[in-house]
Amino acid sequence: MTPIRAAILTVSDRCSRGQALDTSGPALATMLRDRLNVEIALTACLPDERTELSRQLREWATATPTPDLILTTGGTGLAPRDVTPEATLDVIERRHHGLMELIRRRCYEKTPRTYLSRGEAGTIGRTLIINLPGSQRGATESLEALLDILPHAIETLRGEVQDDGRPEARSITGRVVHHGDRS
Amino acid sequence: MTPIRAAILTVSDRCSRGQALDTSGPALATMLRDRLNVEIALTACLPDERTELSRQLREWATATPTPDLILTTGGTGLAPRDVTPEATLDVIERRHHGLMELIRRRCYEKTPRTYLSRGEAGTIGRTLIINLPGSQRGATESLEALLDILPHAIETLRGEVQDDGRPEARSITGRVVHHGDRS
Amino acid sequence: MTPIRAAILTVSDRCSRGQALDTSGPALATMLRDRLNVEIALTACLPDERTELSRQLREWATATPTPDLILTTGGTGLAPRDVTPEATLDVIERRHHGLMELIRRRCYEKTPRTYLSRGEAGTIGRTLIINLPGSQRGATESLEALLDILPHAIETLRGEVQDDGRPEARSITGRVVHHGDRS
Repeated sequence: MTPIRAAILTVSDRCSRGQALDTSGPALATMLRDRLNVEIALTACLPDERTELSRQLREWATATPTPDLILTTGGTGLAPRDVTPEATLDVIERRHHGLMELIRRRCYEKTPRTYLSRGEAGTIGRTLIINLPGSQRGATESLEALLDILPHAIETLRGEVQDDGRPEARSITGRVVHHGDRS
Repeated sequence: MTPIRAAILTVSDRCSRGQALDTSGPALATMLRDRLNVEIALTACLPDERTELSRQLREWATATPTPDLILTTGGTGLAPRDVTPEATLDVIERRHHGLMELIRRRCYEKTPRTYLSRGEAGTIGRTLIINLPGSQRGATESLEALLDILPHAIETLRGEVQDDGRPEARSITGRVVHHGDRS
Repeated sequence: MTPIRAAILTVSDRCSRGQALDTSGPALATMLRDRLNVEIALTACLPDERTELSRQLREWATATPTPDLILTTGGTGLAPRDVTPEATLDVIERRHHGLMELIRRRCYEKTPRTYLSRGEAGTIGRTLIINLPGSQRGATESLEALLDILPHAIETLRGEVQDDGRPEARSITGRVVHHGDRS
């Protein structure tokens, strides 16, 4: 498997104005690099503005070469200006509830507040977008919860997994029918 | 309770072209028949095409007699052509997140990858549609996770459950006010 | 923190016609008052009619003073007339999956049927709407599951939580840059 290509979008009014330090974005980049050998291709920091966020996500997802993964950090809570999930829903074509459920399931022991996050996940083209919380601890604990299944998810999204778990049909001559797709 | 009437839709490019054997659909049928005395009324196999899938689901849900349950198997993952959840969302009128959560909760011990499934569930008219994974093991383990609550779900959807858990109001003469509905 | 202001909407054909007693609404009110010192500002009982329900929710969420929280009880199941989640989706601007997941996670030990509820949650303006089941037991057990995180959720929604978990940036003179927002 060639290395996963990722982009990281930090969503924070304060960071975008230079009033706070973005430690979450760099911490996610380090974790992806060290644990999954991911190439961090793109990073940015934007304020909590739905239109700006969805435009950035769409631009990255249609860039060449296309990133396999876009992580966002911030804007997933109930604060009045938190709109990262809405900006994500604006652009994704196929939703993914399970990834968010797995984060909450696994982070619950550390803090039940993981269930307050409104993060969404889904795909646009061949890119998987995942919303993570804004705090460094929340962001890295959430990503940690996905590390074991992320490579398989990306391989599948790339179309590199040919096995759909169904046994091959054999022709009447006994030869295996050729196929290269999956369902 | 009269037997549950079910339809099973296998979603697979390879199976629809005769290149793979559909073992998942028959395995689901056997489990439904043996464990819940379900009548399998309709089965079909279609490629991963959103329009064809949603048309089939709508046709079945409006057939006479109407099936209580439609199970799909396949097309719920992250592979580029997986669109069964989207075809399902195209037709359902009322979503059901809990059924999918229960599958993932209960199948987790067998494999955390259950959280990679993007399956949806919901109702159209008096029919409940549930998306299951494509592999025989994934499909049957997921259905197994729902067997204990499925009969109650179907009874409720049929309108056969009259008790909403609220105590009856009594008239001033002490007689129970007649009612035949539920909320 | 000033007391949470709440509204409670009972959804039941039978209760709205006086054929059943609404014990769920009052039980929720008592629990909110006794456990979280909540002020119950508004209550109503409506039949399972989507348009009436969404109109009531919107009216309350735009009232002055605005309630922090609207709880609904009833209409979250699979019965043909259950449409409270749909009426809720009609009005909310930002969805919240985690709250419902937390209810189901925590109520599971008491009854796996908690996964049959189709309840939704989300915000409209500064008001959080949460759908609870109709039975008194289901409604109170579900609310119980949220009591520990509800105050923090409301504080955040009010904009009273200024800390986004990111460290402050310092100017070159060593002074902390002023800020009063959060992201």
